[in-house]
Amino acid sequence: MSAEPMLWSGWGDPALARELPEPVRELLRDLLGVRGPAVPAVPLESVRLPEIALDGRVLEDLAGITGAGHVRTSREARVRHTRGKSTPDLLRMRAGDALDAPDAVVLPGSHAEVAALLELCSRERVAVVPFGGGTSVVGGLTPDRSRGPAPGRPGDGPDGGGAPFAGVVALDLSRMNRLAGFDAESRVAELEPGLRAPEAERLLAAHGMTLGHFPQSFEYATLGGFAAARSSGQASAGYGRFDDMVVGLTAATPAGTLELGRAPRSAAGPDLRHLLLGSEGALGVITSLRLRVRPVPAEKVYEGWRFPTFREGAAALRELAQDGPLPTVLRLSDETETLVGLARPDALGGGGAGCLVIAGYEGASVAAARAGAAAVLARHGGEPLGEEPGLAWERGRFSAPYLRDSLLAAGATVETLETACFWSGLPRLYDAVRLALLGALGSPLVMCHVSHVYETGASLYFTVVTAQDGDPVRQWAEAKRATLEAIAGAGGTVSHHHGVGRDHLEAYAGELGPVGVEALRAVKARLDPRGVLNPGVLVP
Amino acid sequence: MSAEPMLWSGWGDPALARELPEPVRELLRDLLGVRGPAVPAVPLESVRLPEIALDGRVLEDLAGITGAGHVRTSREARVRHTRGKSTPDLLRMRAGDALDAPDAVVLPGSHAEVAALLELCSRERVAVVPFGGGTSVVGGLTPDRSRGPAPGRPGDGPDGGGAPFAGVVALDLSRMNRLAGFDAESRVAELEPGLRAPEAERLLAAHGMTLGHFPQSFEYATLGGFAAARSSGQASAGYGRFDDMVVGLTAATPAGTLELGRAPRSAAGPDLRHLLLGSEGALGVITSLRLRVRPVPAEKVYEGWRFPTFREGAAALRELAQDGPLPTVLRLSDETETLVGLARPDALGGGGAGCLVIAGYEGASVAAARAGAAAVLARHGGEPLGEEPGLAWERGRFSAPYLRDSLLAAGATVETLETACFWSGLPRLYDAVRLALLGALGSPLVMCHVSHVYETGASLYFTVVTAQDGDPVRQWAEAKRATLEAIAGAGGTVSHHHGVGRDHLEAYAGELGPVGVEALRAVKARLDPRGVLNPGVLVP
Repeated sequence: MSAEPMLWSGWGDPALARELPEPVRELLRDLLGVRGPAVPAVPLESVRLPEIALDGRVLEDLAGITGAGHVRTSREARVRHTRGKSTPDLLRMRAGDALDAPDAVVLPGSHAEVAALLELCSRERVAVVPFGGGTSVVGGLTPDRSRGPAPGRPGDGPDGGGAPFAGVVALDLSRMNRLAGFDAESRVAELEPGLRAPEAERLLAAHGMTLGHFPQSFEYATLGGFAAARSSGQASAGYGRFDDMVVGLTAATPAGTLELGRAPRSAAGPDLRHLLLGSEGALGVITSLRLRVRPVPAEKVYEGWRFPTFREGAAALRELAQDGPLPTVLRLSDETETLVGLARPDALGGGGAGCLVIAGYEGASVAAARAGAAAVLARHGGEPLGEEPGLAWERGRFSAPYLRDSLLAAGATVETLETACFWSGLPRLYDAVRLALLGALGSPLVMCHVSHVYETGASLYFTVVTAQDGDPVRQWAEAKRATLEAIAGAGGTVSHHHGVGRDHLEAYAGELGPVGVEALRAVKARLDPRGVLNPGVLVP
Repeated sequence: MSAEPMLWSGWGDPALARELPEPVRELLRDLLGVRGPAVPAVPLESVRLPEIALDGRVLEDLAGITGAGHVRTSREARVRHTRGKSTPDLLRMRAGDALDAPDAVVLPGSHAEVAALLELCSRERVAVVPFGGGTSVVGGLTPDRSRGPAPGRPGDGPDGGGAPFAGVVALDLSRMNRLAGFDAESRVAELEPGLRAPEAERLLAAHGMTLGHFPQSFEYATLGGFAAARSSGQASAGYGRFDDMVVGLTAATPAGTLELGRAPRSAAGPDLRHLLLGSEGALGVITSLRLRVRPVPAEKVYEGWRFPTFREGAAALRELAQDGPLPTVLRLSDETETLVGLARPDALGGGGAGCLVIAGYEGASVAAARAGAAAVLARHGGEPLGEEPGLAWERGRFSAPYLRDSLLAAGATVETLETACFWSGLPRLYDAVRLALLGALGSPLVMCHVSHVYETGASLYFTVVTAQDGDPVRQWAEAKRATLEAIAGAGGTVSHHHGVGRDHLEAYAGELGPVGVEALRAVKARLDPRGVLNPGVLVP
């Protein structure tokens, strides 16, 4: 785990980059025909940036709010706040294209500063991209600067304009990184949105508490980002999704401040917390979160099980989700993912036969749940593999993005996508996504795991590896489009982990339907009347 | 349990009305000074109804959609669809005031008919009150007919008008009462909104399943009402609140149809299901629900525990909610409620000392949870009372509204209200509400129980009994106003079970804040541009 700055053109701490093991190199070469990268990576100083469009007067006004030291226009600051960390984002960046860079990076220190910045930017027709860890993989940090509000006509709403924005600022929330309060009796912590997950865990551990939220982006992602993107973590079976943890929140919007959540639950009208959760910076900027926390578990056991087939493994997971006991961590790799060893990167290239289940148990005492789940897993044909595969999974649980960097450099495209549906639809959804990817990419490697289970359904998380053709960005865009159509056709949701961003906008509109889109647009127009918040993201 | 028609001026099947036991009569007379009802109840034929305002042509158009047999304008139909079942509603009705009656009752048979009715009513400026079981206790069925849309200017929105509506129809959903689908693998049932809870349970039991939703209104309330009001039930600790069960829904709105929920959970944007849950008929009419169901439990044990004080009992409940094992049913009466015996109506007037806890366990096998919870309850000072108080509670769990009828007839006002907050705020909230009620009503009997627990907080459910003064409706309105102010001052939510309706509108606006109100208004204006859906309800 690292607290080093993110690699500008890839993932994480450059010192943690790893060489591809020889079996993987062979597999890439022999199975996928990978022959080298389509485009060599450029150095930082060669990256192409747009001119700074923002007026000097506006830059001064921004600095007037945050202090001059907290408005940055350096090459490095702008590059580091360009787009997110999807594979197309990295491919573009490696090729030296930072043409979506913001004009400036602004770092507010408080809710009041965020509110003042939104007011200024609304008035000056400046687009604002809230920026946490910068780990979006759906284009959530790539605003559309082309369709700004009409000059001088406040209140026209996002559809009223047409002229480009006067500029784009990245609103970097990293200075808002405090544990602002802790209510031990209620087990509620008040945390600021710019906190990275590891730092939040460190602050909570001093009180003996944890969030238990461990997505693959854990090392760099922030709490505000988790909330704004409705994040799921690897231990969400036990700790719940991030949106399950949010009992209250404060958000700044161009229309004023929202303060939501007086009680765990209420019957007083629609739960507007669920409007801000998943709002992806397009409806407001979350400036404070009141989160349910839990004691740091006294015991932790992760173990592996092997199933003959994906179908049998899925039946076991379904029984655990519906009748319990439900492990804290529960994932099932399909045959291909198991063979490649993706669930335990130390065994990459030689994972073995069947379908690997990782089951983890955390709590004050885990023996009873572990024994109960073992009985269910065994009854469905599972063979216990002991703790070793579980520990290997735990060690490697945040390593996949580093591996991606190595694969990109070797000339392979690797990307992930996820969906979810009800249990009865899962086989059809699985087949539809695989077929779409195979059809679009020729002979890629398509791996899948069940990453989250619920009583009524589950999510499927796919990892795809293919040889880069001459235009890997376009190549993936076409495959993704075909996949999203397949997901919609099979009745799945467009995203279970990652959100909408710009990449899923069209599919999301289909999922919401025209009336749902209208409802969302209405909220956007009221909270952000000039449409400056993350334009082009989320709202179809 | 009864499937008989609801008493028009009270609750439930008139045959189940019960005499007040002598200890209760004594208590009313000696402690509260109850001397008889302020106003005697009138017979149905003396109830005052407004003239039917609706144009004959519109009535014909309504019948053209549903068939003539499904548009009713009889005295009895109109009276039975007047307001809900709050104590002020009953006091008014007993006094012969049905001046809020709808002009007609319309009974659609399908989503398509609901959609067509909404289109017609929008066009004709007719207010529409969606009507399920008619059990609202917050004025959710009392539309404001005074401020309709301006004639002939469609699209003006609810604020554009000023002229009264052309009429009011109650949209009675009782014909939409089918189990439309059952997905055994996903444990999802598709149920229509007009199903009463007992009938839904009967249909599901044929598949071995249950919703596990048992609010006090169980005998008469409908599934659509549960969803529209975010209902909690007596077994919500184990089965979740009703909104936890809704994995998908269809709603008709004047702007078109909403179809939400492709998966148990999604990261694709704000969860718009939570806009319709709690929408109280003001944003759309729920025409189908996809609900998570569970197997009918093989075992069921309810038992009683006695705690020396409310504080100790609450500490025990908190530990069960935070660290488990959590019973399926869990409620704690305060000293007054215990003494009066409200939790077990067979012992009314002689409940004993201390604070009674009812703990219920349901599942395939309950011994382990029961033993684990018993250890926690005992550690906090609880004394086990065995199953007898639990069984008595179960027998009486739906009887309180019948008891209310008897009390009203005897000249006492009895009403309930509930709130919720985080654990650390509970003592202050408890004191604030009690003080407000005592201050407003002189010397009422104020009883309370913790009705629902969460990891981070709990709800408080108050029952108040007082002697009626000469104007009991005004008397209660003033007490309620003081109580809502006290709840807001102590940081509680305006409602944990019952919703907003018209009675909580002002307090709800305070809880949402001006920006939250704007967001809700924006959704209303877009989905119901002429503001015909339940006008005056929910949206401040």
